[in-house]
Amino acid sequence: MTEPERDETQTPQPQALEQNPAQPSETEDESQVEELDADRIETVLDAVDAGDAEAVAAALEPLHPADISDLLEQISSHERKALLTLYPEGIDGDVLSELDEGVREEVIEAMPREALAEAVRELDTDDVVDILEDLEDHDQAFILDALERDDRVAVESSLAWPEYSAGRLMQSETVSVPQDWTVGQTIDHLRSADWLPDQFYHVILVDERHRPTGNATLGRVLAAKRNVPLSDITEEIFVTIEATEEEAEVARLFNKYHLISSPVVDGAGRLVGVITIDDAMVVLDEEHEEDMLRMAGVGDESSLSDGVWDTVRQRLPWLAVNLVTANIAAAVIGLFEGTIAVLVALAALMPIVASMGGNAGTQSLTVAVRALATRDLTESNAARVVRRELLVGLVNGLCFAVVMGGVAWALYGRDIWLGVVIGAALVINLVVAALGGVLVPLLLNRLKLDPALASGTFVTTLTDVVGFFAFLGLATLVLL
Amino acid sequence: MTEPERDETQTPQPQALEQNPAQPSETEDESQVEELDADRIETVLDAVDAGDAEAVAAALEPLHPADISDLLEQISSHERKALLTLYPEGIDGDVLSELDEGVREEVIEAMPREALAEAVRELDTDDVVDILEDLEDHDQAFILDALERDDRVAVESSLAWPEYSAGRLMQSETVSVPQDWTVGQTIDHLRSADWLPDQFYHVILVDERHRPTGNATLGRVLAAKRNVPLSDITEEIFVTIEATEEEAEVARLFNKYHLISSPVVDGAGRLVGVITIDDAMVVLDEEHEEDMLRMAGVGDESSLSDGVWDTVRQRLPWLAVNLVTANIAAAVIGLFEGTIAVLVALAALMPIVASMGGNAGTQSLTVAVRALATRDLTESNAARVVRRELLVGLVNGLCFAVVMGGVAWALYGRDIWLGVVIGAALVINLVVAALGGVLVPLLLNRLKLDPALASGTFVTTLTDVVGFFAFLGLATLVLL
Repeated sequence: MTEPERDETQTPQPQALEQNPAQPSETEDESQVEELDADRIETVLDAVDAGDAEAVAAALEPLHPADISDLLEQISSHERKALLTLYPEGIDGDVLSELDEGVREEVIEAMPREALAEAVRELDTDDVVDILEDLEDHDQAFILDALERDDRVAVESSLAWPEYSAGRLMQSETVSVPQDWTVGQTIDHLRSADWLPDQFYHVILVDERHRPTGNATLGRVLAAKRNVPLSDITEEIFVTIEATEEEAEVARLFNKYHLISSPVVDGAGRLVGVITIDDAMVVLDEEHEEDMLRMAGVGDESSLSDGVWDTVRQRLPWLAVNLVTANIAAAVIGLFEGTIAVLVALAALMPIVASMGGNAGTQSLTVAVRALATRDLTESNAARVVRRELLVGLVNGLCFAVVMGGVAWALYGRDIWLGVVIGAALVINLVVAALGGVLVPLLLNRLKLDPALASGTFVTTLTDVVGFFAFLGLATLVLL
Repeated sequence: MTEPERDETQTPQPQALEQNPAQPSETEDESQVEELDADRIETVLDAVDAGDAEAVAAALEPLHPADISDLLEQISSHERKALLTLYPEGIDGDVLSELDEGVREEVIEAMPREALAEAVRELDTDDVVDILEDLEDHDQAFILDALERDDRVAVESSLAWPEYSAGRLMQSETVSVPQDWTVGQTIDHLRSADWLPDQFYHVILVDERHRPTGNATLGRVLAAKRNVPLSDITEEIFVTIEATEEEAEVARLFNKYHLISSPVVDGAGRLVGVITIDDAMVVLDEEHEEDMLRMAGVGDESSLSDGVWDTVRQRLPWLAVNLVTANIAAAVIGLFEGTIAVLVALAALMPIVASMGGNAGTQSLTVAVRALATRDLTESNAARVVRRELLVGLVNGLCFAVVMGGVAWALYGRDIWLGVVIGAALVINLVVAALGGVLVPLLLNRLKLDPALASGTFVTTLTDVVGFFAFLGLATLVLL
């Protein structure tokens, strides 16, 4: 291994992409972030194959940490190890922050300890917390030891808040000033500070007990005269967040109220940190992903970089639940074996009734799960929404009853009564589907369970059972 | 109607929720935004029923515009009209901005013209554009006329960009300075400006042709000494966005690169506006909703406040597609009527094979659609992901083949061969499901179609057809 010699010249500068403003503006395009593409990945992998550390470094250098992280996630575990061995300096703290949990653990294990220590030291405390949460104890201890004392204290107190809480999401570094200061005092204070957070958007006003009482945007601080009291220019919307609040709720509040940054307070109302919108946006994105994956019966931690066994472990449980419910539907059909033996065409037609119900139920369910997540569906309008779904199910059911009744009569013959039976079964099943699609998530929500969790399985079981029972039951009554 | 008399005293101040900083901090709690709850809605509706405009105003006044908008969306159309008649001043520009499209149109039609004109005049241009996009021509013209000249020009030039583009999303109000200025010059300029945007987070550096060359956060501008050149404190990450870029792509870039605000440029690279992260977050949220609704075969414009007919119109088309595909699956079963007539138990068991395939396919599909949206699934790793899905399908298939084969043998008797047939059919269908779940969205993506659009219908059709064919075909070969 020959990397050490190149340490000086090859130090990765993935963030140093800004235009050098002294240069003429023709370089404008190169100042932009270069997003990862297939060519770049190929270049890197070729260099890794060739064992050419310099070429790897040259190919990675213009990339943003988020893209280096994407690259690491998209290549195979084998290629990742080879890359890390050739060029461990490529992984700085920002790259670690961006990595998926599974890949991150692998990368951290593979990194030289000194490089790891240096990588975490450059991060804000919220990012360190994010990395630490998922690690084994011995890695956690190593990283905590690597931090400077103040940072370690901040990280440890953040870790003391519950998982997925605002306390874990916040950064402890805040910019706060006494609420009776003027703009001038504030600016002088900021100028003389020997350290400020990487990104901050508000000056937080606090009272004598360090409780936040207002938020002043930097724009207004900059634009105001020096003798203006800070309290005259605070934001009209002021939302503080309890450190114990769930992060999903934090994301919802940021999105709803268009917050940019919000102070986080402890039980006594004292300022303990600040959450910024970019972190809230990441949470919002993850929450959506969770909802989608849960509705589909996929473990909500699933990621594209998981291996076969992890993936099987995530998906098998819900398939097992589905096997049970499918057997219930099969038992319903079993009740009518005598009918099917007499009229085998029923066996071909019955899945149509079940399938239409399953689709209609999924439509209704998806709208309801989404509306519950955004709090658009509440106790106040639940009755009206249920009534609407009922009517929609009825109208759709009647439409398809006419069409499918005609098709069944034409294709499967016998007499018009086969068409009537399948039409009636469709109306029943589409009404049940529409109601089930909204009532199942409402019920789960009332039980304080996640409405997205497995609603899909419940609703399709319902529509399968009702569809088979209605169709075969009516057929037994009418056609035999 | 008695509203006019109350105009002076009842002017709504939904945003005036900040703590009055001169007051003692005991009022802290009241300084917080009060979120809408069922009690509040009931209070408002009671006041509307009683025709008591003052009580309506008093109940709405402490609410944030986002909550007034939620309230309007959650009550019935009839109640909405009554509320608007009693208290039209309750709807200001911010409330209009927050409303869902359908409800907004209704509200705008119901508002007195003068109130509407005043409401739009207080908005930033991006919010005006957002409102105008969805309106009828005569309402558009009225609102444009109501604007001040500069704003009208800005709105009209924003409307000249394509729908759902960065040009529509941006606000035209930017804060930019020559790239060779110092911090001191910049601060003096901001202080002397007679107008600044409501929210801004960066000072944009531009060259002599008004092309952006860098972004300086206000935090750094505030903290730096007056004689520091602005170009020394620009952000390391600098991303400009073409006005023609799709808004979904803008949201993805903001989320990926943790941008807070980004300059928007025209074809010549000149600064024409700025997009801030709060708007990007709203787009990200909407894009997720679209993906969820599309996968479920629900029109992506669907909203909880739509009426029965709108909802039927959105859902019926995909149910019609499903009716066709369900008939294809029925035709496959029809091929084996002779087999079913001999062994009726097959009719009960066959939906199990189809249902397991449908669930496994949906799992695989959901992961793939999501990964394509986040660009985690690319050409570079598609082959590996497909291979993984194949193996996962095989492992799951083998597990459930053993279980279900045993169950079929135990419950439905005959001989062990029924168990072998259903087991083999499960393996085949779960492998096909896993492959279909990832290949269908990859194919749609390659064809430049939205991978979310109707993938669900394609995949379940595939698993129904393959499930029935494999199970009944094998049964015909082995059991008869």
